[in-house]
Amino acid sequence: MATIGFVGLGNMGGHMARNLVGAGHELKVFDLVPELMESVTGAAGQASAADTAASVDVFISMLPAGRHVAGLYNDVFDAFAPNTLLIDCSTIDPETARSVAQQAEQHGLDMLDAPVSGGTAGAEAGTLSFMVGGSDAALARANELLDVMGANIFHAGPSGAGQIAKVCNNMLLAIHMAGTAEALALGVNNGLDPAVLSEIMKQSSGGNWSLNVYNPYPGVMEGVPASRGYAGGFLVDLMTKDLDLAMDTAAQSRSSVPMGSLAKNLYRVHQQNHDSGGLDFSSIQLLYKPDLNEG
Amino acid sequence: MATIGFVGLGNMGGHMARNLVGAGHELKVFDLVPELMESVTGAAGQASAADTAASVDVFISMLPAGRHVAGLYNDVFDAFAPNTLLIDCSTIDPETARSVAQQAEQHGLDMLDAPVSGGTAGAEAGTLSFMVGGSDAALARANELLDVMGANIFHAGPSGAGQIAKVCNNMLLAIHMAGTAEALALGVNNGLDPAVLSEIMKQSSGGNWSLNVYNPYPGVMEGVPASRGYAGGFLVDLMTKDLDLAMDTAAQSRSSVPMGSLAKNLYRVHQQNHDSGGLDFSSIQLLYKPDLNEG
Amino acid sequence: MATIGFVGLGNMGGHMARNLVGAGHELKVFDLVPELMESVTGAAGQASAADTAASVDVFISMLPAGRHVAGLYNDVFDAFAPNTLLIDCSTIDPETARSVAQQAEQHGLDMLDAPVSGGTAGAEAGTLSFMVGGSDAALARANELLDVMGANIFHAGPSGAGQIAKVCNNMLLAIHMAGTAEALALGVNNGLDPAVLSEIMKQSSGGNWSLNVYNPYPGVMEGVPASRGYAGGFLVDLMTKDLDLAMDTAAQSRSSVPMGSLAKNLYRVHQQNHDSGGLDFSSIQLLYKPDLNEG
Amino acid sequence: MATIGFVGLGNMGGHMARNLVGAGHELKVFDLVPELMESVTGAAGQASAADTAASVDVFISMLPAGRHVAGLYNDVFDAFAPNTLLIDCSTIDPETARSVAQQAEQHGLDMLDAPVSGGTAGAEAGTLSFMVGGSDAALARANELLDVMGANIFHAGPSGAGQIAKVCNNMLLAIHMAGTAEALALGVNNGLDPAVLSEIMKQSSGGNWSLNVYNPYPGVMEGVPASRGYAGGFLVDLMTKDLDLAMDTAAQSRSSVPMGSLAKNLYRVHQQNHDSGGLDFSSIQLLYKPDLNEG
Repeated sequence: MATIGFVGLGNMGGHMARNLVGAGHELKVFDLVPELMESVTGAAGQASAADTAASVDVFISMLPAGRHVAGLYNDVFDAFAPNTLLIDCSTIDPETARSVAQQAEQHGLDMLDAPVSGGTAGAEAGTLSFMVGGSDAALARANELLDVMGANIFHAGPSGAGQIAKVCNNMLLAIHMAGTAEALALGVNNGLDPAVLSEIMKQSSGGNWSLNVYNPYPGVMEGVPASRGYAGGFLVDLMTKDLDLAMDTAAQSRSSVPMGSLAKNLYRVHQQNHDSGGLDFSSIQLLYKPDLNEG
Repeated sequence: MATIGFVGLGNMGGHMARNLVGAGHELKVFDLVPELMESVTGAAGQASAADTAASVDVFISMLPAGRHVAGLYNDVFDAFAPNTLLIDCSTIDPETARSVAQQAEQHGLDMLDAPVSGGTAGAEAGTLSFMVGGSDAALARANELLDVMGANIFHAGPSGAGQIAKVCNNMLLAIHMAGTAEALALGVNNGLDPAVLSEIMKQSSGGNWSLNVYNPYPGVMEGVPASRGYAGGFLVDLMTKDLDLAMDTAAQSRSSVPMGSLAKNLYRVHQQNHDSGGLDFSSIQLLYKPDLNEG
Repeated sequence: MATIGFVGLGNMGGHMARNLVGAGHELKVFDLVPELMESVTGAAGQASAADTAASVDVFISMLPAGRHVAGLYNDVFDAFAPNTLLIDCSTIDPETARSVAQQAEQHGLDMLDAPVSGGTAGAEAGTLSFMVGGSDAALARANELLDVMGANIFHAGPSGAGQIAKVCNNMLLAIHMAGTAEALALGVNNGLDPAVLSEIMKQSSGGNWSLNVYNPYPGVMEGVPASRGYAGGFLVDLMTKDLDLAMDTAAQSRSSVPMGSLAKNLYRVHQQNHDSGGLDFSSIQLLYKPDLNEG
Repeated sequence: MATIGFVGLGNMGGHMARNLVGAGHELKVFDLVPELMESVTGAAGQASAADTAASVDVFISMLPAGRHVAGLYNDVFDAFAPNTLLIDCSTIDPETARSVAQQAEQHGLDMLDAPVSGGTAGAEAGTLSFMVGGSDAALARANELLDVMGANIFHAGPSGAGQIAKVCNNMLLAIHMAGTAEALALGVNNGLDPAVLSEIMKQSSGGNWSLNVYNPYPGVMEGVPASRGYAGGFLVDLMTKDLDLAMDTAAQSRSSVPMGSLAKNLYRVHQQNHDSGGLDFSSIQLLYKPDLNEG
């Protein structure tokens, strides 16, 4: 069993930390909100991030944005014992991820960027997917702990590659979700039954994750947000945040991302016109069928 | 066994007619190009479409566009024996499909719109998918013949619904193909291996038909057009034609289709800038990674 | 003074006909709605379009769409006296315009397509702009009458060119209107005064017709629809109709029109989400700043 | 006459500094490239930025990006004499502009963000436009010097507002340039003469700066880049840089910018597919009419 420092105990981090405690690891935890530290029963709350970094085998962070990650590690690099393994599970811009990993290297420390997908439900159930950037050796050291928190571990490449894989995946997700909602609305506007059309496209070349397992049209599929008023799920506010990261990544590499950019802007229009930031991201269906809103 | 009239023996229709002959049906065929009639061994070439329509149980058409279909049926309605079943397998605008079906009804005839997907390979192998619009009764009569030519038969709804299902499906296909090419280019531009990134997204929420079975990035997947210089396959020229139909369908129903419209226009830009009308539609990858062209 | 047949006395046609009467011409008029014929004081209402076509020097039509124009001329070609000059002022697809002009030529008649811009206010004031397709000779014959109804006459080219010029112009108009609304919202969201920002961009390279004379932001410019609750003006429903024609024209010529397509789809989203078909087209501002709606 | 420190003597800054010398001001200049310092005859080259900041009335900077500006001022704040007026003419992200201005205020110094438009030709001729953010008092102090370097001075608002006005303007410029190229290509593809169509749209509601004074179609207008092989002018590489800033500004304010995003991505596609980064930005015409490239 390992001694683990864990910083950032919000909606995701709290569940992840509890799963590590449950697997028998010794946890030192820190969050700016004291109540969140108390919520991880069996873990030792700390007075500061630096205290949390000291004398641990592995240090895990789960924070909202790149500036928080950069700020945190800047504060704690000197506190780490030699050979501490660093794992940042935050979803941030690849540039910051690479820069922090570089500093870690200069301190002689292994670091992984390991953003997750699967949402709070996946975090609670320990079934997250990790997209990991860093060396094979570092990942080998992390594997057992990632297995506690998740069900799938993908090695995307060197430092930063985990973040890049995540923004690519989520950009593509936004594209086919918007596209699926658009195709379903087009069919319905022309008299088709959305369930029949969905079934046809699933078995044809239109098939995609949004259509197959997360249908955005109300009433087509049981157990998805669309069938419970778009109560999330993966919120529009979080999808737009991930799409901002994708756009940054594209700008820095001078990549053209016309489809992703349009999807992002449709999400922005939806967010503003339907005050839908707190709804599941499949609610983009409402932008194409605003009359569903009045049902 | 049925007596079948078949008009339109091009890349698709020729294979379909040969499969019907192979299954033991008696075929009367017509095409403006005499050689194409000769290519259907065992079928009886006719002097006109009207001759082909006379004294058959079932009449099948496979033509390029709505105006050809409207023109054909206008010429042959009076030639049909009572109770002839009409099946138009052309991909055309839903409005023309509905209008021709209405005329059929006025002549007391059952008619189906039954556009296909699966390409020339599917036509040859008899594994096409049919998306069918028309009555249950008419489809019940057609089922055995459609089974000879295809592997999947989807009943989309009343007359025209087959065409609508097809344009919805193909619009969604264009969207996730462009999106997949875009996401892969973004990853590669940031140092990721396209095969690794593809594998991650397939197992995550980015998964879609284009990524899963028709990967557009050269070298990632064996046996797809991307791995043989985009030799098609489903040509860019045909995809843009289908997208034109989708845009018409959207205009007539006042539907918003921003993602589909952008995908269509990216295909147009690709077509013009890379002279790629004769390449497989996965070659949209070249628009995002023009340097692949020089490899 | 000429004897003129005039068919189509709606919001635009009625004003145009009244201006011709006011200039001393003898008018024979027809509309399916009898009240509209009565509204043109001094004109002789007719029992049919064919009656209106007979025994006139010039025949003018102003109808909603291509199918109406094709239908009308199909009905009246045989009624025209030799040498009647035909002027279709409807905004329709270039293909129909060319086809009808070709039929006119086969009947030995000169025909112009002469769609207008300037709206009902321009129609009433006689200050319309005409974009004319047809021969120099035909335009020379029409000039005096067009001058009565309008202030600007542009000769775009041969038959159909008037329609093409109009769809190009209106597509560009939609693009810079949406772009102007977008730029103003971006500035305001970042603390700028919309009037100050408008003034700067007008005097810089951002300048365009929408910004300079038809500012879409409420309160910036007096006397425009934006400053009276977007009471039109040039309605969203009419702009989307013109954009549909532009998209058709693009599809037929295999032109890529990504910016125009997106503008059209944003107008569709706006139309559906704000029930704004009856508002002036500058109301696209509300899509970018939905909070203006609650002011 | 003032004593002025000037840092950044590239394509723009060199001309601006020479104009200030020409107007009789005493200049201390610094650039990392010694030759550039020598090119400003009559100015005193310095060994460092800090030396340039010391003992001057006004300090002007003209640098490529936000990180350079932040870095420069971080190094020189302590070198300024009390009451030195700071003017940053770089085009950078509004967030950095505001942050540096805030630091200036903490040092008791007035600061303006004053990005320019007008290109190297405007810089040489002293006819630049300045979009200024900062206090009235600071602008009053700067006016005389800005008048030497430019022809138009716009006060956009408080600190950062100059940058915001510039990104809004340039985003709108990119939109109507792409839109104008698109409308012209649509017309030409349908048989219209680009010069005739341009003239019609200029006098109609399609009018905009790109069409009116910077026509992107070769041969329509004399003296513009389009009529000299798109030799530039305002380079595609610079336009994409400005559009990146616009996208950042939109992301930070959660603004939707679908038209601007698409324009940006079309420029990226153009840049990559035609290797056109070094061409004038009106060369986007080539994306719509690639056959012009072979003329």
